[in-house]
Amino acid sequence: MTRILILGGGGMIGQKLAQHIIDDAVFAHPQITLFDRAFPPEGVTAKTLAGDISDPATAKTLIADRPEVIFHLAAIVSGQAEAEFALGWDVNMMAMWHLLGAVKDAHDASGGAYVPRIVFTSSIAVFGGPFPDKIGDNFLSAPQTSYGAQKAACELMLTDFSRKGFADGLSLRLPTICVRPGKANAAASSFFSGIIREPLNGVEAILPVPDTVRHWHASPRAATRFLTKAAKMDTSLLNGRRALNLPGISCTVEEQIEALRRAAGQSVVDLIKPQPDETIMGIVAGWPRDFAPDRAIALGFKAEDSFDEIISVYMRDELDA
Amino acid sequence: MTRILILGGGGMIGQKLAQHIIDDAVFAHPQITLFDRAFPPEGVTAKTLAGDISDPATAKTLIADRPEVIFHLAAIVSGQAEAEFALGWDVNMMAMWHLLGAVKDAHDASGGAYVPRIVFTSSIAVFGGPFPDKIGDNFLSAPQTSYGAQKAACELMLTDFSRKGFADGLSLRLPTICVRPGKANAAASSFFSGIIREPLNGVEAILPVPDTVRHWHASPRAATRFLTKAAKMDTSLLNGRRALNLPGISCTVEEQIEALRRAAGQSVVDLIKPQPDETIMGIVAGWPRDFAPDRAIALGFKAEDSFDEIISVYMRDELDA
Repeated sequence: MTRILILGGGGMIGQKLAQHIIDDAVFAHPQITLFDRAFPPEGVTAKTLAGDISDPATAKTLIADRPEVIFHLAAIVSGQAEAEFALGWDVNMMAMWHLLGAVKDAHDASGGAYVPRIVFTSSIAVFGGPFPDKIGDNFLSAPQTSYGAQKAACELMLTDFSRKGFADGLSLRLPTICVRPGKANAAASSFFSGIIREPLNGVEAILPVPDTVRHWHASPRAATRFLTKAAKMDTSLLNGRRALNLPGISCTVEEQIEALRRAAGQSVVDLIKPQPDETIMGIVAGWPRDFAPDRAIALGFKAEDSFDEIISVYMRDELDA
Repeated sequence: MTRILILGGGGMIGQKLAQHIIDDAVFAHPQITLFDRAFPPEGVTAKTLAGDISDPATAKTLIADRPEVIFHLAAIVSGQAEAEFALGWDVNMMAMWHLLGAVKDAHDASGGAYVPRIVFTSSIAVFGGPFPDKIGDNFLSAPQTSYGAQKAACELMLTDFSRKGFADGLSLRLPTICVRPGKANAAASSFFSGIIREPLNGVEAILPVPDTVRHWHASPRAATRFLTKAAKMDTSLLNGRRALNLPGISCTVEEQIEALRRAAGQSVVDLIKPQPDETIMGIVAGWPRDFAPDRAIALGFKAEDSFDEIISVYMRDELDA
């Protein structure tokens, strides 16, 4: 039996991750607990626990049954973390601090036997411009958003608690996940999915940036594969650098739209309505455009090969349903 | 009048910084408050406040009279932060968290008028190997000690609180300060000073590493100049990257010893006794050796030009006294 705890288990990736674990025999006899503020009404069949991850008492409860694998996906998204500064730091940084404290207490109480694998979803938001054409594995983390700063601080804590042997963690700097199913969210990156998702569902989509904007994408399927691979990999291969830039697809909005045209035709593309938004353009201007994630590729992490493939993942997983 | 608060004001650099501010008219009518756990018996003449910086209530007290400039030098040194894990995180990271929270509260209460300059002493310990020959300004922070992780996390917080306008801070990644006067401390880097200081005072010194070890140094005088320059500089020139690698001298232990020979002769050098220490060698192996701190140099930060000059600073400031 493998006890698995998914923090942020009510969210899109948390739900897909749980379903992947249930469907694909990723772990032997998985016993999954999903933790979140709330859960979707027709969500994955698993034990759920509702609560506030920023409450210092929560972490102790979550660690009570000694989960062997902890996926920490819980976060306030970038737009909200900018708008609600204190909430962002509480949820995105202090919750990790409390979690690691509870893990260390359990480690100490077990005489050192309890050393859970912790897989943390960090983000390419840990990077801030000016950027090189491709961001290499040795490029500095200089975030220009609170969300990015909070993720980067969590990486540092998780790495140090792991170096000391209290946990065995790693941080995945996920590309922007595209195409997100469901509704737009408060992330400033939401439109990257919206311009594909809404037209494919016969709905108009706003494009708030010029189509020359280049960005870094991977599908929800790639994300769940990254997470389970990270949960099972030999972390000694990381040589102490426990934050990983992951593979993705670098493409412009124009290239996204061309792929949509190939997949669904001009009439679908016509549903995209350019409507420049200075605020979003400003935020996106500070974001990474392309990476050379050599370490992750050498470790066997794999994303899609093209944006066409990202669209086809969405059409297969979400439109057929 | 300029209200100046020095956290860690009882330490070696804190004392020298206060004396520099008093002697050299760095600020108009400085009103200095030194905060620390304890103070040297014959220390600088200034208001002192004793307390525990890791106590969440402390920060509020420190900010009560709205200091315009805050130098945050308080820290548990690297060796102790490795040995006392919880203490290290409490003092080296959580104290910054509480300080910034108190500053933001005061900022909010003032209707946004209170925006103190905060100068934080970070460290080259935010870097971890493998290193390039010279560490450039865009090299990643991947610390391999708790001390380094704590300093790097503080940098992220200070930068983000500053970006939001609650404070106006910057983090100085100081070289190893050499030659430290007084007694050896618990820092693993202590011997870099010891092998110069003890022989110049007629005392034997242990050299725990091979003389091929290369490291990055600046004098206490350079450090105090860095700090006051940082307190007065136009931070908009930092373009949002508020952590700076500072200039220093890169030299091997052999080159340190040659400079000592030039300054004081062979009989003094003969007081250095090689006595390899595997633990210290292991820690030092993970430390930076050389930098190309182009940004700080362009901004006008200046260290010594040679290790000979570092020794002469020590002889002038400490031996004549």
